[in-house]
Amino acid sequence: MTGWIAVAGLGPGDEALVTDEVRSALAEATDVVGYIPYVARVAPRPGLTLHPSDNRVELDRAGHALDMAAADKRVVVVSSGDPGIFAMASALFEALEARPEPERFDIRILPGITAMLAAAARLGAPLGHDFCAINLSDNLKPWDLIERRLRLAAEAGFAMAFYNPRSKSRPHQFARALDILRETCGPERLISFARAVTTPDESLSTVTLAEATPEMADMRTVVILGNAETRRVGRFVYTPRSAG
Amino acid sequence: MTGWIAVAGLGPGDEALVTDEVRSALAEATDVVGYIPYVARVAPRPGLTLHPSDNRVELDRAGHALDMAAADKRVVVVSSGDPGIFAMASALFEALEARPEPERFDIRILPGITAMLAAAARLGAPLGHDFCAINLSDNLKPWDLIERRLRLAAEAGFAMAFYNPRSKSRPHQFARALDILRETCGPERLISFARAVTTPDESLSTVTLAEATPEMADMRTVVILGNAETRRVGRFVYTPRSAG
Repeated sequence: MTGWIAVAGLGPGDEALVTDEVRSALAEATDVVGYIPYVARVAPRPGLTLHPSDNRVELDRAGHALDMAAADKRVVVVSSGDPGIFAMASALFEALEARPEPERFDIRILPGITAMLAAAARLGAPLGHDFCAINLSDNLKPWDLIERRLRLAAEAGFAMAFYNPRSKSRPHQFARALDILRETCGPERLISFARAVTTPDESLSTVTLAEATPEMADMRTVVILGNAETRRVGRFVYTPRSAG
Repeated sequence: MTGWIAVAGLGPGDEALVTDEVRSALAEATDVVGYIPYVARVAPRPGLTLHPSDNRVELDRAGHALDMAAADKRVVVVSSGDPGIFAMASALFEALEARPEPERFDIRILPGITAMLAAAARLGAPLGHDFCAINLSDNLKPWDLIERRLRLAAEAGFAMAFYNPRSKSRPHQFARALDILRETCGPERLISFARAVTTPDESLSTVTLAEATPEMADMRTVVILGNAETRRVGRFVYTPRSAG
């Protein structure tokens, strides 16, 4: 087959954070697939077919991309942020695993600025020491496992970045996560809420865990919890490089 | 003061992974400071002074940047990858903390594609589920803490990205880290070595922990350990989105 698939990260929203590598792939593509708001970020042009699809159909979308590549199309699967961090790259490989001769597909993963990096940059440097990234959605894993990870991450002294902290379908879980973090990290630990970073809707706030409420986050928010050494300097929040 | 500081991430090496935001800052700068090989990536031009400095002088370099901004210079502090991940952003805030009236400085952090994202993209999607990032250098933290974090991260089921896995001054520690990981994650766990990713010197390899040797890493290598579900498909390594 002459078709290919590029799974591309569009970054957090600002066009100045899209890489040339991703722009080149989009310029060569015949088809773009992805979640509706991400496909909306791709400029229409003659010869390019846009295939927006809804949330939670990642495997169908990945299968569609494989089918089109097998039919010699040049397909870009778009994610926001980075495609490898809680995004479409893993879904594509899950779909690929179910196909005969996976080696015949020409696949590239094109990295992007993932939300936690953009959020950390706006806030200062809260991820300047060892850290972890946890997806707080329990769509694909049991909530018990998430609670266990929060406790172990706190014990390890990691700063933590939380993706998908809260949705309408599970409003109580983020409250429970905050309770666990208060219990394990103490009320004075700093926590930052970075919403829609680098877009016109951007908002940033940093509070202590004692002050944090579940309503401070929604599905467009990345939440970053500092480690025990994280502190403010000027308008910034940062984590020192030395042991935390 | 009219001067400013931008702490900018140049990405892993490929010019197609430098953001326009970073290019704009470099185009407006009067001075660039950074570790010698990173400053070497900035094209000289009239009106721009390059200040390359050696490794391990991060605080001096940050202080120099603050002094120049206070003297109305437009200063870009360059890091490879992302400045907020084991790089210059935290060092700058440490230096800023020691200054009177830190609010008077105009500082921006400009994100970049950090090494683990570029490495993960080349390998497939090994960071597709919850993961942690650990700097294996003990320059700024005790080795005991690193060992403790490795054990807790293994218990939490995180995939793991390791920065600075090995240097000439501490050749035995990475061997010890591999021993701990074999003990906690088992010999069949997949581990990937991604060296000089996106540069002409790039090399990639994935082996089991049983097969891994310390010599597979050097200071230009990012090491990515999968979680219990991480597997191969075609030429790729990926971690499924569901519980691992």
